[in-house]
Amino acid sequence: MAKKTTKQQLTIGIDIGGTKIAGGLVTARGRLAKSLVVPTLADKDLKTSLGQVFRLIERLIRHAGGKDNLRGIGMCAPGPLNPKTGVVFTPPNLPSWRTVPLAQLVRERFGVPAIVENDANAAGLAEVLIGAAVGYRDAFYVTVSTGIGTGIIIDKKIYHGKNGVAGEGGHVPIDYRSPYLCGCGTRGCIEALAAGPGMARRARVLLEQEHGAPSLLRTLTKGDLSKITPKMIGDAAKLKDRIARLILDETGFLLGVWLGGMISVLDPEIIVIGGGVSQIGKPLFDKIRETIPHYTVNRDFVSTLPIVPAKLRKDVGIYGTASLFLNLAE
Amino acid sequence: MAKKTTKQQLTIGIDIGGTKIAGGLVTARGRLAKSLVVPTLADKDLKTSLGQVFRLIERLIRHAGGKDNLRGIGMCAPGPLNPKTGVVFTPPNLPSWRTVPLAQLVRERFGVPAIVENDANAAGLAEVLIGAAVGYRDAFYVTVSTGIGTGIIIDKKIYHGKNGVAGEGGHVPIDYRSPYLCGCGTRGCIEALAAGPGMARRARVLLEQEHGAPSLLRTLTKGDLSKITPKMIGDAAKLKDRIARLILDETGFLLGVWLGGMISVLDPEIIVIGGGVSQIGKPLFDKIRETIPHYTVNRDFVSTLPIVPAKLRKDVGIYGTASLFLNLAE
Repeated sequence: MAKKTTKQQLTIGIDIGGTKIAGGLVTARGRLAKSLVVPTLADKDLKTSLGQVFRLIERLIRHAGGKDNLRGIGMCAPGPLNPKTGVVFTPPNLPSWRTVPLAQLVRERFGVPAIVENDANAAGLAEVLIGAAVGYRDAFYVTVSTGIGTGIIIDKKIYHGKNGVAGEGGHVPIDYRSPYLCGCGTRGCIEALAAGPGMARRARVLLEQEHGAPSLLRTLTKGDLSKITPKMIGDAAKLKDRIARLILDETGFLLGVWLGGMISVLDPEIIVIGGGVSQIGKPLFDKIRETIPHYTVNRDFVSTLPIVPAKLRKDVGIYGTASLFLNLAE
Repeated sequence: MAKKTTKQQLTIGIDIGGTKIAGGLVTARGRLAKSLVVPTLADKDLKTSLGQVFRLIERLIRHAGGKDNLRGIGMCAPGPLNPKTGVVFTPPNLPSWRTVPLAQLVRERFGVPAIVENDANAAGLAEVLIGAAVGYRDAFYVTVSTGIGTGIIIDKKIYHGKNGVAGEGGHVPIDYRSPYLCGCGTRGCIEALAAGPGMARRARVLLEQEHGAPSLLRTLTKGDLSKITPKMIGDAAKLKDRIARLILDETGFLLGVWLGGMISVLDPEIIVIGGGVSQIGKPLFDKIRETIPHYTVNRDFVSTLPIVPAKLRKDVGIYGTASLFLNLAE
């Protein structure tokens, strides 16, 4: 085993997205030694976009000084996949990908261990191994951006469930009579209500209803309410804009209701919240923390439960996928 | 280790309730060899009711032919407890019990391993080891009666979480704006909506609103709607009573919404549903199964997910607590 400890110190992480493919070389201590990005040729055939992934890996192997220095290659792709088999099914942003055995293809081509994982699961593991939850073994990871992804980490491992699709906490309904139907088909799941588009929609509806009410959001969007973003809401709320504050408070409240339920089910050691929306920061986290005790049966334990912002922001996709091999050293 | 396999073949299970204490002797194969019940002297001091537990254990040890034949003593009590330390906090039906180190007291008095566990967790484990989920390793167990208890079994072990209070799925809110506030403080959690009292309340409200509408429920309760029980609703629904069927359908729908969310989070191998309300049987299970695919992101996997009635009904408290030692043999 001497070879493992002396040589295989680097891991490749590949984040395959609909608009870009990011790859990096991460050290055993979780430092990003090198990163590369290429725009995804998503409208081309499978061979083209898969070829992009292969070439990115080849470049990173060269940077690593050869494949003997690698522990493995971790990858994530959008949409449904099976982390147990490494098969990617039907990524909505990669129309030519249909049931692609990605892990196997990469393993056979490069002769290096390869794993494919859901992005939120991988990011959650990375937060436990090298991010905001270092020192903890059991975590509930949440990323709030255009969707709400979650990952359940138990004993420093990703909890996969029977079919590899566990940890989809973003699609738990908290308001089954809601007018908001999620892309996933569930009415009133937290993603439909509190992710970026849900937040923007609630702001738009409120501004349309209060059509005479002044708001910075009207100025920032030049009156085109379809252009509202979560960042605008966060910025306007900081400047004490009443409508923006209402929407921000409601977002924190909804996330708190939902996390209350997740705490009743999972009783985690720590909750880590990442993603673009979470970068609104303190006012959002304060409202989440204030709400949770009202919506969990485990309220006696909430005062000692850390609810912290994610540490890995930029390049979280690379850190996450690389982290799939980082815990093997222990 | 020869002694273990040749002699310690029996386990004591003790189910401490507010009205009765039930105890039994269970074989390594999960057969109930002996059971005893005494009415709980709940209004007396701690010494009295704890003495009842001790005497029940003494009688069962005699039946076992001495403590050398025992693997251990498993116990459950109502209300909050810490399965990791074996401490029972404040059971609502046992007012004299305040932070009782039950496992330690039993262990020291009898010189036999002792474990205290939440009743739904224990019942879930028993279903996996000797009940409806034999052959499965990961299960989500649900009991619907006066409350909704749940247990998460992963790899044939109870999932406890950080503070030993994981698996409280009954208090996940699915309708945070609901008029129904749970005893736990959560508004619109599934227990408040769909457990026995929630079901009866929904029937009462509907009958009061439709005050001219005929219903068997009026006959069965002799007009006193406060006397409606889930069993009456099930019986009246069987006789095609319109109101009873509406309430039963709604109960199945609500449970399906909630289980949809649980499936998104946990991706279990099997769901086992027990408790008095579940004994309404097929019409309830049919509505649950019909609803789930509309409220989970993991709908592609639902068609192969077994959702089965519990096998251990009578004496489930004894089987459950005894099962805490049954998996140690493997």
